[in-house]
Amino acid sequence: MTLKTPREYIDSLRYLRENLYLFGEKVKNRVDHPIIRPSVNSVAMTYKLAHEPESKDLAVAESMFAGKKVSRFNSVFGSTEDMVKKVKLQRELGQRTASCFQRCVGMDGINAVFSTTYEIDQKHKTEYHQRFRKWLEWVQDNDLCVAGAMTDAKGNRGLAPSQQADPDMFVHIVERRKDGIVLKGAKANITGAANSHEMLIMPTLRMREGEEDYSVACAIPTDAEGVTLIYGRQSGDTRKLEDGDIDVGNYNFGGQEILIILDNVFVPWERVFMCGEAEFSIMLVDRFAGYHRQSYGGCKTGMGDVLIGATALIAEYNGVRKAHHIRDKIGEMIHLNETVYGCGLCCAYEGWKTKAGNYQCNILLANVCKLNVTRFPYELTRLAEDVAGGILATAPSEKDFRAPVTGGYIDKYLRGVPEVPTEARYRILTLIQAMCEGVVAPSYRTESMHGAGSPQAQKITIERETDMDLKQSLARSIAGIDKREDPLDPASRGGWKSPA
Amino acid sequence: MTLKTPREYIDSLRYLRENLYLFGEKVKNRVDHPIIRPSVNSVAMTYKLAHEPESKDLAVAESMFAGKKVSRFNSVFGSTEDMVKKVKLQRELGQRTASCFQRCVGMDGINAVFSTTYEIDQKHKTEYHQRFRKWLEWVQDNDLCVAGAMTDAKGNRGLAPSQQADPDMFVHIVERRKDGIVLKGAKANITGAANSHEMLIMPTLRMREGEEDYSVACAIPTDAEGVTLIYGRQSGDTRKLEDGDIDVGNYNFGGQEILIILDNVFVPWERVFMCGEAEFSIMLVDRFAGYHRQSYGGCKTGMGDVLIGATALIAEYNGVRKAHHIRDKIGEMIHLNETVYGCGLCCAYEGWKTKAGNYQCNILLANVCKLNVTRFPYELTRLAEDVAGGILATAPSEKDFRAPVTGGYIDKYLRGVPEVPTEARYRILTLIQAMCEGVVAPSYRTESMHGAGSPQAQKITIERETDMDLKQSLARSIAGIDKREDPLDPASRGGWKSPA
Amino acid sequence: MTLKTPREYIDSLRYLRENLYLFGEKVKNRVDHPIIRPSVNSVAMTYKLAHEPESKDLAVAESMFAGKKVSRFNSVFGSTEDMVKKVKLQRELGQRTASCFQRCVGMDGINAVFSTTYEIDQKHKTEYHQRFRKWLEWVQDNDLCVAGAMTDAKGNRGLAPSQQADPDMFVHIVERRKDGIVLKGAKANITGAANSHEMLIMPTLRMREGEEDYSVACAIPTDAEGVTLIYGRQSGDTRKLEDGDIDVGNYNFGGQEILIILDNVFVPWERVFMCGEAEFSIMLVDRFAGYHRQSYGGCKTGMGDVLIGATALIAEYNGVRKAHHIRDKIGEMIHLNETVYGCGLCCAYEGWKTKAGNYQCNILLANVCKLNVTRFPYELTRLAEDVAGGILATAPSEKDFRAPVTGGYIDKYLRGVPEVPTEARYRILTLIQAMCEGVVAPSYRTESMHGAGSPQAQKITIERETDMDLKQSLARSIAGIDKREDPLDPASRGGWKSPA
Amino acid sequence: MTLKTPREYIDSLRYLRENLYLFGEKVKNRVDHPIIRPSVNSVAMTYKLAHEPESKDLAVAESMFAGKKVSRFNSVFGSTEDMVKKVKLQRELGQRTASCFQRCVGMDGINAVFSTTYEIDQKHKTEYHQRFRKWLEWVQDNDLCVAGAMTDAKGNRGLAPSQQADPDMFVHIVERRKDGIVLKGAKANITGAANSHEMLIMPTLRMREGEEDYSVACAIPTDAEGVTLIYGRQSGDTRKLEDGDIDVGNYNFGGQEILIILDNVFVPWERVFMCGEAEFSIMLVDRFAGYHRQSYGGCKTGMGDVLIGATALIAEYNGVRKAHHIRDKIGEMIHLNETVYGCGLCCAYEGWKTKAGNYQCNILLANVCKLNVTRFPYELTRLAEDVAGGILATAPSEKDFRAPVTGGYIDKYLRGVPEVPTEARYRILTLIQAMCEGVVAPSYRTESMHGAGSPQAQKITIERETDMDLKQSLARSIAGIDKREDPLDPASRGGWKSPA
Repeated sequence: MTLKTPREYIDSLRYLRENLYLFGEKVKNRVDHPIIRPSVNSVAMTYKLAHEPESKDLAVAESMFAGKKVSRFNSVFGSTEDMVKKVKLQRELGQRTASCFQRCVGMDGINAVFSTTYEIDQKHKTEYHQRFRKWLEWVQDNDLCVAGAMTDAKGNRGLAPSQQADPDMFVHIVERRKDGIVLKGAKANITGAANSHEMLIMPTLRMREGEEDYSVACAIPTDAEGVTLIYGRQSGDTRKLEDGDIDVGNYNFGGQEILIILDNVFVPWERVFMCGEAEFSIMLVDRFAGYHRQSYGGCKTGMGDVLIGATALIAEYNGVRKAHHIRDKIGEMIHLNETVYGCGLCCAYEGWKTKAGNYQCNILLANVCKLNVTRFPYELTRLAEDVAGGILATAPSEKDFRAPVTGGYIDKYLRGVPEVPTEARYRILTLIQAMCEGVVAPSYRTESMHGAGSPQAQKITIERETDMDLKQSLARSIAGIDKREDPLDPASRGGWKSPA
Repeated sequence: MTLKTPREYIDSLRYLRENLYLFGEKVKNRVDHPIIRPSVNSVAMTYKLAHEPESKDLAVAESMFAGKKVSRFNSVFGSTEDMVKKVKLQRELGQRTASCFQRCVGMDGINAVFSTTYEIDQKHKTEYHQRFRKWLEWVQDNDLCVAGAMTDAKGNRGLAPSQQADPDMFVHIVERRKDGIVLKGAKANITGAANSHEMLIMPTLRMREGEEDYSVACAIPTDAEGVTLIYGRQSGDTRKLEDGDIDVGNYNFGGQEILIILDNVFVPWERVFMCGEAEFSIMLVDRFAGYHRQSYGGCKTGMGDVLIGATALIAEYNGVRKAHHIRDKIGEMIHLNETVYGCGLCCAYEGWKTKAGNYQCNILLANVCKLNVTRFPYELTRLAEDVAGGILATAPSEKDFRAPVTGGYIDKYLRGVPEVPTEARYRILTLIQAMCEGVVAPSYRTESMHGAGSPQAQKITIERETDMDLKQSLARSIAGIDKREDPLDPASRGGWKSPA
Repeated sequence: MTLKTPREYIDSLRYLRENLYLFGEKVKNRVDHPIIRPSVNSVAMTYKLAHEPESKDLAVAESMFAGKKVSRFNSVFGSTEDMVKKVKLQRELGQRTASCFQRCVGMDGINAVFSTTYEIDQKHKTEYHQRFRKWLEWVQDNDLCVAGAMTDAKGNRGLAPSQQADPDMFVHIVERRKDGIVLKGAKANITGAANSHEMLIMPTLRMREGEEDYSVACAIPTDAEGVTLIYGRQSGDTRKLEDGDIDVGNYNFGGQEILIILDNVFVPWERVFMCGEAEFSIMLVDRFAGYHRQSYGGCKTGMGDVLIGATALIAEYNGVRKAHHIRDKIGEMIHLNETVYGCGLCCAYEGWKTKAGNYQCNILLANVCKLNVTRFPYELTRLAEDVAGGILATAPSEKDFRAPVTGGYIDKYLRGVPEVPTEARYRILTLIQAMCEGVVAPSYRTESMHGAGSPQAQKITIERETDMDLKQSLARSIAGIDKREDPLDPASRGGWKSPA
Repeated sequence: MTLKTPREYIDSLRYLRENLYLFGEKVKNRVDHPIIRPSVNSVAMTYKLAHEPESKDLAVAESMFAGKKVSRFNSVFGSTEDMVKKVKLQRELGQRTASCFQRCVGMDGINAVFSTTYEIDQKHKTEYHQRFRKWLEWVQDNDLCVAGAMTDAKGNRGLAPSQQADPDMFVHIVERRKDGIVLKGAKANITGAANSHEMLIMPTLRMREGEEDYSVACAIPTDAEGVTLIYGRQSGDTRKLEDGDIDVGNYNFGGQEILIILDNVFVPWERVFMCGEAEFSIMLVDRFAGYHRQSYGGCKTGMGDVLIGATALIAEYNGVRKAHHIRDKIGEMIHLNETVYGCGLCCAYEGWKTKAGNYQCNILLANVCKLNVTRFPYELTRLAEDVAGGILATAPSEKDFRAPVTGGYIDKYLRGVPEVPTEARYRILTLIQAMCEGVVAPSYRTESMHGAGSPQAQKITIERETDMDLKQSLARSIAGIDKREDPLDPASRGGWKSPA
């Protein structure tokens, strides 16, 4: 086993071709750039856990191939227990980074492509699955970081890919060559792409007949020829460029979203895992979405733990930790956070084995999990802002706090209970501010809303995945429209049918 | 194995001493009384499932003693899987009866008493656990129905048992004899007590020093000398006495709540399982509450399935099943229902083994489950009323529908889409009405609120069961109050500590 | 002035033709029928207030014609202040009856027909408005009770009136005679119709070209030839037939919903106020809906006051009135109730004068009011059930309470704090039960949902009534898409335009 | 009349003593500082409206003294209509600035001090009211900008002012001189203080006996000797220092919160309006809070209009404006926004005349208004984030958009519908981002939560201001605990009593 250390991982990024842009300029050294480094650190944490005795069991998985130990983020789920460990790993990483650690899209994409390629091959006598396993083993062996890249630019959201005025609004094949294919388009807001070695391209929605060129899955190095990366802004991002560390809120860790441009990128056949099988795009999307909607039950509850802890601390620092309404609000935050976690766990436990042999989580429950994620972190931030007090969004700068004239005043007047230094109170306030309105908000709020699909996507899937026929026949039996069940008659069954 | 058939169960009730009162009179034949029979049928369904090939796996459990097959409702949970099956069994029964089937309090009480008696014995060298196992084996062998009886009359809710003006407001020991103890007091709103052979008495809250006489657990036949049962009313209960079946809403099945009076009831020692060990009362209460708060994740989602099905049907009968806002509301109902179910499942999967060897569900997650139950079924009824239309609460009587003059008018004018007979629409409307405002509402709404403890009890438990120290230390580390975690330093750990 | 006394009103009902059916039979004496009488009492209260010195100012209005004093329920609103008084009158009546008092549909219909007929006449040179004023003056002079009758049977809700398989699913003209018209169809769930002398027929939705026969408004005596009334059931209605008064919850007062059959009913021309002017149907519907959606800001807050008071009392009787979570929940109930009231008031204050001279409330704000009514009373009932405790839905019957054996037990064990008689606690519990799940629930819940149109109707109106162009231009200006406003340049105006 | 023009106002700020700190340094020219200027512009807008023909009626008020025309922000409310105009003025300013325009605290403070000083004088034979009127006339005549300064540093929130370890945690009198008093302490997060000429100091909570030195109200020039101002940070504030204007979101306008240090500031007697009358502190606080909790019904709905408009535009730019779920969400945003507005209006209309002759809004309804403000803007931001899509929080920088390599890619790939330039979409996204998570969020979210007191303060006031005795007696009458009202008996009154 050669699992990378955090340092090895970070150093490996230094060898990537310079293709990342930030504030209109090409970034020379992405690893040490103060705006980017926190996001690198968050990924590094995923490597660190694989070496910790206490976390190894979560962070390292048994590979389905040849029994090797691999990073769970590069693993194929061999059991429901593996998916449970995934969620627990995500919660722990959310707790320790209070940010997006960027590797879940890759992990979830790997598993969706794994099972979908198997079924494409079965139908079409293709060889995608073997290719994919080969690529995956190489990724595992080198312990690479893989970004999942699904979301397209999309243009007019009311039109299908093939109806767009600009055909590039969805990534598509512009040329089929003997040795491979050439892609054009963009993948938008791709988590951690500039911190990854590889990216796994997947279609973003159900493709129809005639959209074969859009039905493409493949692996591309993030620094391949023709790939350009543009760094997304976050609220409060430039605070990382200021002196001091308080105003950032979360100084060491961060998320990262990248606009990926694919400008005639060549992909050799051995890296192509779907190429024109439009009817399988929805299977890939659904399975990926199932996995990834579950993921939010892990990472966001870990971040929620930090926010709950910060909220309890600020209440203590303010001298009101025991007030009934404060306790009630913190209790509510815990309740909502654990509801999300429970949903994340149960869809793992209720998973099933695919034809390819890996495990898929329960898709209905995974969507239920994610739909709660589009609501509850927002309520947690609201409650945190309530408990923290107005100072949350109006505190002076750290520079004022360090300066001679203003520093003394601030130290004196922004103190809460006298036992706690003003600086501690300051720090907790900026952490809460960062999670609610600052640099963490894109991870904790917007990503909770839109990551793995917007709420409407979950609503539609929930509707589709439920057995309405059963529910309606139950109602008809109880109401006496169909024959009612007679408890004394063993042959009478009412609206109920056996579970599959 | 001699698992009772539904008929054997029903007939066995005929032998109980007449001690049940309804509308001020002693009930001669409780089994065939039109108001009571639906509740008997619901219990009978629990017996029926044990004989069904498709449901057996859920309804029958392997006993921890001697490998016998016993009713799951009388079983001790031997694994987390047993608790998962419990929830699935409850959902199925909720689906098939659209009512409370009354046996969960007993099952959950059995498991809580099982593990608590073991720990009392360990500390006090008592022999409660062996007594309890003996009683339980007898219950299992005879496949009896056991009512759990925990809630006391409580009097002034602001005062402890020993502070009440009337000492009988909590069940207590009035005499300790050589051969047993004598109890006085009442257990209030006890589910299914008149349909049970035995009842398992448990203390209702944490007892303090000086409240030894209130710290009592034991088993009593429901028709023992000194026991009087008074039947609780339900909205729309007397519709069961009318001709016809439509207006009842749920004609075949129902719930049952009983006020149990214990007027100097003698209990022999072999049936006494706690007697004065005040400090163990809270363990018993908490474990019971944990199990029982989980139970609502099963039964109420089964009832929710019926309500969702009925709502979809009425939308179809009204001709608006495809309308976007209707679909959105039904999708929301499913989402909320499955959120509850997911919480019920995950606390089972995340259970742990007690010292006594049986399994306890995760108490934090079980409380989270129940707190959602105090909210979501209410929202489901609101949405069902929205979709159903105002006719829900204003339709004429079945008698009008059957009568010569009015019948024709109603048949003509209460029709929705012409393809569906008016009677079918009528029946679905009364089912929804029954669940929202009628005879099922006490089970689906009020019991969701107060069964297994009111919402405030869950809030307090959630607060207590969460690891706030961890959460606060996470926040202090991220904020830089404590040393921040360095991803490159293996020795650096931030606020995080290993999971227990 | 000859405003009827309550007794005169009640006696006047005795002269109506017997055309009311209940439980399949024709009702001989509706006034003294125990199920119907409470609804008569509620209407009688509207007459009583007109004679009370303290309430007169609310209950009696200056007629726009000849300065007579008339019942506000039969008045035309001459100012915004008149509409404010309407809401305050409704709140008071809700407080004093804890039920629907049934006269608002008539009042709101009168005002909508008043202004719409004026505008029809302006366009079509018809004489509807004069006819209507004449009829209205007669109603005012005789202080009659008028039921507004708008909702049709509707059949397939996905189809327009003219598309229905059965043409009678919406009330329509089957014959135009020299002396009048003949109507066929039904009006469904019409509030208070059996307690009214007159009914005011109005179309239920926007009629299209080709639906002239469905575009009809007119006044019909409730006992006219061809009119049949069928009484709607309510949860717990037959408790009024039992001995005792406790179990009913609200013994003296009640609501009433009637299915009205119009079987070839002749209407003379002087009572016809719209006859084929399809394009005006939507004006009539919208104005009526505006008025009536406001009305819920009055009556339901009055009922909410009773429920809040009952909830505070049960908390006191239980000994927990001071507990923080109880106070918080009661505070929340007040907050929600007053939010509804505030919305009801403001749409009156922000009203405008119609061409006919009477006042219309602000339609946007009235719809906002009603949409809150479809949500908040439901939350109030949920909170009331929370505070009340499980006994709410499981208490024994009054007969048990009065009976020799069980009475003593109940008196002893259902007592809360010792200072309060058990009977008082009993009575408050049944009142809450009645409002949440019993005989008042159709008025307090279902009517809140569907009265004056279902929530979707409000959503659509709110969307239509808002000035989206203004809002969008504001956003474009702030964002700098349009020229930004320069605060120093008086000519610069940004996205803003002057209020109309 | 000499109402200042916007330019005159801005220039007047140039004469203020330099006592403002930002990022640890003294600000030389606050008016032209890029971070501060937008907040100056927002105040300037309040001056601009007074000169606009269309807005004058809202922005200019008749003074109660000598019939002069004065800025409404410096006016005393002479009627309920004046308070209605206040709310409408606030909504318009919120619409035109999409930010806090900072003058409401002063206006609301002026009115609270006006009526409270009158009542102090009545009791204590003091002359505060005359002093205050004199100061106010001077303010009106010079059309000055007044900051209301109420919130103290507060230290340990669990302790009263006199119990604090540091006595300066609440502003207090440290010396009483012949010619005036000397104050020490800080006022925290004071809106617009650096843009104001004067500040009106008021106590922050109910003072008790022994806290006479804390019971102080007075007027101080913002640049008086001993006054130091420290500028509060906002999420994304330094984006204003970058080239370009898109990334700021709201480039021209902004809010401002200031930490005011009072370090032994002398106040001459003619500027002192309360000095030791502890028992009147709560009257002042309550009246101010009443006015100011109403204010949020104006300004925040104006900001809400901008957010709703932006949300509708982004939906249009994305090509999904007609999708049902999008329309439903925008409709919900309107509904919530108008609910807040309705509450703001109704408490004005239902106001009452104080002894001093000015008008006070209804305090119960004003608190209801504000409690909704602590909830609904949060839900509006959540819905806006939902509709906008994930790009909201991940878009590249304007610099990337303007740069040669990346600019073309961004222009191509971030386009929505082809008819709309990418830049327009960009701008709307950053506006929404600013309101949800960026520079406007402190105004639109945190201020909505904590401005004019945190939600718990509203809950407590709502509980206190409601007539629970009436509500309980209503319930007792309906339930039959007290005598029930007989509708036929004019002397029977049930639980109801006449309105005050």
